[in-house]
Amino acid sequence: MKAVLASNNAHKLQEIRAILGDCFEHIYSLKELGVDVEVEENGKTFVQNAIIKADTICRLTGLVAIADDSGLEVEALDGQPGVYSARFAGEPCNDDANNALLLDKLHSLEKNQPINRKARFVSVVAICYPDGSGKYAEGFVEGTILDEYRGDKGFGYDPLFYCNQLSKTFAEASMEEKNTVSHRAMALQRLREML
Amino acid sequence: MKAVLASNNAHKLQEIRAILGDCFEHIYSLKELGVDVEVEENGKTFVQNAIIKADTICRLTGLVAIADDSGLEVEALDGQPGVYSARFAGEPCNDDANNALLLDKLHSLEKNQPINRKARFVSVVAICYPDGSGKYAEGFVEGTILDEYRGDKGFGYDPLFYCNQLSKTFAEASMEEKNTVSHRAMALQRLREML
Repeated sequence: MKAVLASNNAHKLQEIRAILGDCFEHIYSLKELGVDVEVEENGKTFVQNAIIKADTICRLTGLVAIADDSGLEVEALDGQPGVYSARFAGEPCNDDANNALLLDKLHSLEKNQPINRKARFVSVVAICYPDGSGKYAEGFVEGTILDEYRGDKGFGYDPLFYCNQLSKTFAEASMEEKNTVSHRAMALQRLREML
Repeated sequence: MKAVLASNNAHKLQEIRAILGDCFEHIYSLKELGVDVEVEENGKTFVQNAIIKADTICRLTGLVAIADDSGLEVEALDGQPGVYSARFAGEPCNDDANNALLLDKLHSLEKNQPINRKARFVSVVAICYPDGSGKYAEGFVEGTILDEYRGDKGFGYDPLFYCNQLSKTFAEASMEEKNTVSHRAMALQRLREML
């Protein structure tokens, strides 16, 4: 059975092939199939966005489609930035602006009282089949939002996200370390068990 | 395990309890839980709408949530009315207006040449778990859109939908007959096999 990942992100493709690769004959990227489409991610949750992406690409290609939606949920911000993680400071998406806005919001809250800096990265991976069935699973990793940037690896909120399990920020961790505990790895493992 | 159906439709509740009832301790309606919420069904497909409903109600209640989205796809109308089946002729939803609009559209096409009257009722049933996982399955039943109303049972497009398997319209069939071949029954059976 051939599958397609609803993304052209090389890192995601690598991670998904590593965990789900043996379940399929081949997992294509959109680019490999010549599919150039912008899916409107207007869901209110990671679950809804992952399904919207996988369902759309499944219908477009006629193949089994896999999609991931992920982001950061900060407790003191009632789960923000959540599904808006990539475009928190507006579009076009900019990691520096997003991280600066996150610190700004926490500083504003902190003026009055100590705040809860707990956060989690969440990923939902969905798989949609051309026969009209599908499945999804969520994974998460818990951490703390620091008040300063640490490390220069990774991307997104990684320099501010201190991972409890690794005892360092995601930007200080190697890709191998991050992959062992990451929200996406957990979602993929859970989905694999459901296949 | 307790579950909730993201609907107050007594007929749906009965059909879903009949097929999935023994998988759960109890399947509540929204009313039984005192939940009064209007979920915005802004998905582009039955899959997306079923997930949006089940995911929303799962988060709201903390229970396993089951939702169905269904409608009619007419080949000559490129799959219309599809996800707009209930509100085809606008809101508030009105079966007579929807059926009249469907016939109007087919008549317009028919002025020039004979048309393809094949259609299918489609249902997607989704189930979302509080642990962040979920599944869905599609069912369908094939038929033909008649040029006249036949029968007074059922609801929606039933008087115009001649079911190939039953050799009568859905509005001429008893509820028992309809349930044996219905799109929702097929989706529920397929989902049951996935549980």
